[in-house]
Amino acid sequence: MKLFVPTLALAGLVVAVIGAADADPVQRIVETGLRSDGAYRKLAWLSDRIGPRLSGSENLEKAIVWSLDEMKRDGLDNVRAERVMVPHWVRGEASGRIVSPVPHPMALLALGMSDGTPPQGTTAEVVEVSSLDDVKALGDTAKGKIVLFNKRIYPNGADDRGYGGVVALRYSGAAAAAKVGAVGMMIRSLATADFRLPHTGAMAYEDGVPHIPAVAVSPEDAELIHRFLAAGDTVTVALTSSCKNLPDVESANAVGEIRGSDAPGEVVVIGGHLDSWDVGTGAQDDGAGCAITMEAMRLIRSLGLKPKRTIRAVLFTNEENGLRGGKAYAETHAAELAKHVAAIESDSGGARPLGFGVSAGAGGTEVVKKLAAPLAPFAADDVQEGGGGADISSMATAGVPQLGLRQDGTHYFDIHHTMADTLDKVDAHDLAMNATAMAAMAWQLANLDPPLARYVPPKTEDTTKPPGIRR
Amino acid sequence: MKLFVPTLALAGLVVAVIGAADADPVQRIVETGLRSDGAYRKLAWLSDRIGPRLSGSENLEKAIVWSLDEMKRDGLDNVRAERVMVPHWVRGEASGRIVSPVPHPMALLALGMSDGTPPQGTTAEVVEVSSLDDVKALGDTAKGKIVLFNKRIYPNGADDRGYGGVVALRYSGAAAAAKVGAVGMMIRSLATADFRLPHTGAMAYEDGVPHIPAVAVSPEDAELIHRFLAAGDTVTVALTSSCKNLPDVESANAVGEIRGSDAPGEVVVIGGHLDSWDVGTGAQDDGAGCAITMEAMRLIRSLGLKPKRTIRAVLFTNEENGLRGGKAYAETHAAELAKHVAAIESDSGGARPLGFGVSAGAGGTEVVKKLAAPLAPFAADDVQEGGGGADISSMATAGVPQLGLRQDGTHYFDIHHTMADTLDKVDAHDLAMNATAMAAMAWQLANLDPPLARYVPPKTEDTTKPPGIRR
Repeated sequence: MKLFVPTLALAGLVVAVIGAADADPVQRIVETGLRSDGAYRKLAWLSDRIGPRLSGSENLEKAIVWSLDEMKRDGLDNVRAERVMVPHWVRGEASGRIVSPVPHPMALLALGMSDGTPPQGTTAEVVEVSSLDDVKALGDTAKGKIVLFNKRIYPNGADDRGYGGVVALRYSGAAAAAKVGAVGMMIRSLATADFRLPHTGAMAYEDGVPHIPAVAVSPEDAELIHRFLAAGDTVTVALTSSCKNLPDVESANAVGEIRGSDAPGEVVVIGGHLDSWDVGTGAQDDGAGCAITMEAMRLIRSLGLKPKRTIRAVLFTNEENGLRGGKAYAETHAAELAKHVAAIESDSGGARPLGFGVSAGAGGTEVVKKLAAPLAPFAADDVQEGGGGADISSMATAGVPQLGLRQDGTHYFDIHHTMADTLDKVDAHDLAMNATAMAAMAWQLANLDPPLARYVPPKTEDTTKPPGIRR
Repeated sequence: MKLFVPTLALAGLVVAVIGAADADPVQRIVETGLRSDGAYRKLAWLSDRIGPRLSGSENLEKAIVWSLDEMKRDGLDNVRAERVMVPHWVRGEASGRIVSPVPHPMALLALGMSDGTPPQGTTAEVVEVSSLDDVKALGDTAKGKIVLFNKRIYPNGADDRGYGGVVALRYSGAAAAAKVGAVGMMIRSLATADFRLPHTGAMAYEDGVPHIPAVAVSPEDAELIHRFLAAGDTVTVALTSSCKNLPDVESANAVGEIRGSDAPGEVVVIGGHLDSWDVGTGAQDDGAGCAITMEAMRLIRSLGLKPKRTIRAVLFTNEENGLRGGKAYAETHAAELAKHVAAIESDSGGARPLGFGVSAGAGGTEVVKKLAAPLAPFAADDVQEGGGGADISSMATAGVPQLGLRQDGTHYFDIHHTMADTLDKVDAHDLAMNATAMAAMAWQLANLDPPLARYVPPKTEDTTKPPGIRR
């Protein structure tokens, strides 16, 4: 007797009833996809054999070359690199310690794109806040001090209980602190697990405002400083950081296609981002999204399926500290965006798929709900209004309907942007379910008639957050 | 309306029925202890205001002075330091990286008591094993290589699925590897959570066997090396470590008593260990045990209770890398051990108390079960055969009945011996329950007639494990 996991048994049952040869293409994708370890093998190569892939690094360029080769090996059409200039920030070394009231080392990482301290470091008194408004309210009392943004986030936390609500502190906190005369900025790592592990991430300075050093400290260090301050102590810390911004360098989006049979000029984009932070191996963020994308393409191709429209995989460069890949794609392909019928991004890790978030015109979400129905046997059919991805967000103004492949995010921020973002955090079967969901949705959107209603972007955006998560 | 947590409400009910003024001393301990934050305040001082307390460090001596002062402030009798010579190992700096097949940094810590590498480091091929027998079987093939002990442990894992079964690899692995000609030893951290966090701990060399460098690598690094080896690659790593062993220095056990009214020469010892590893602040291991012990004493004293026998708090020095405090206590007090009626140690962290483990003569466990019954309202009444603690284990040969205060250990090895062992890992109410359980048991054992049957130690011990966990 053979043993099947329930999802495979269900999919197998459907195929058996219909008859394998004549099976619906979506059912064939599901049946084949759930049994494949292709996505995991691709992710293992990217994580273990290439490693961290920060913009400007040799590793990122190796990853681009490898992914192009891999897409060629998988038989994709029009495989090519689309050149993009990207920032070149280098981390150097950073360290810090509490000097008083009691000496303690701190576990910290410089924030991406920040400038370093002077060689002798920056030593100053700490003032603690939990919002950008708090900083403004400090006024002159912040002069010469280091501002600590101390705001805890929670797994699956909504609004200011979660990453999306608090990331503005990391991105814009240094500029806000510099405006009131602070000489340094620290932030409690945006973390949902406390293991003395600092979480890096992008920040940005503002024109005309001093470039003060900015670091993320471990949750434990932020808590300790909080306890000292709550007890009435003056807290002094010393920071050193040698990170710096170098001139832009050339990188590329890696692109491969399955050419449409009826309307090759109409396009469904699917993708993730190939760059990662430098401290882990970017297995979860966003090696997983790249592996899911590449495997979805391989699945469709290997089954000999011919979509009416073109399905285009784009492995974006420089999502983490510039979003240049996403922006360049939208610029380079501006003339074609009216014929981009949808874009799907996977950039929430490799945990089991929940379904999709949809940013489309009227009725779009309802249509996607129906398209997701065949994913019900493995519970990937939960479709919600709103969603997309940072890289594809640059296509929003052109009205391209955007979908985000949603993963279970309960543990995503435990290790997000840390040195613990490594292959062991991703499960092979979870990844197979994701690739299957991506392939099934891309296939159907490429054949959908009429296509999803065009997206109508909102008028305003919150510029305190990183581009791509401003909506 | 006042709100009570259920445990307090239950305890309160008992007191109300009996009448507060005439209440049984055990009920008064429970009622008062569960409402006190005294243990947490002591632990906060030890962790935040003093910090890491490795043997030979200034901080450990500060902690001894503080704990003596604190016991005096709490009104204890005969408060004194009992001098002990302890090892003086210093960590220096350690780092390491995978050189081939693909360069990756490793997160590691030198093992305590190990020697460093030569200044230029040690670079060699890795051979992976999962037991001490595996190493012997390597024979000549281990010559010139670095042995990686890669054995995963699991939360609450029994036998070789848990810490107690695997710690022999950390303690004796370097000697075993050196015997077959290895030039270095690495061990997968004894960890139940994977956050790229190395876990240090004690090791020992053997006479006449080369002192090769020994480090603990993060679980992720061990897994990565395993994947490379499983793929057939040769793996080379480079290690540097500058740790060293200096001459012994003076330290002390910190002792305070509540003098017995009827038989002051008969003693119940309660304790934990004041020293800790240097990388965290030793909040869980074993600041918690010291805070529990000190607060148990304060509780009994503050209630004006007069035990028939003496209750003696001993905050042992040097448990982590030598057990000199425990050994010295047994030697110094050898003549009195026949009149030590029991010893209770708390060295399993600060999570909620489960009950006690008991190593005593016939019927001892049954007696302790009855004594633990008043702890049922907060579920600390689970008494099991077998148990004790490393520091009090030196009293075993004298027949002293030994009890271990047992805590929920599900997350204990997540952060054990790491830089994440900090105050935030301990909950104030959990700690209050522990101090209450310790006080109630110590009080009853000091008045128990007849006392627990004397312990009869087993004949053999496993010398591959650290002293104190050899049984």
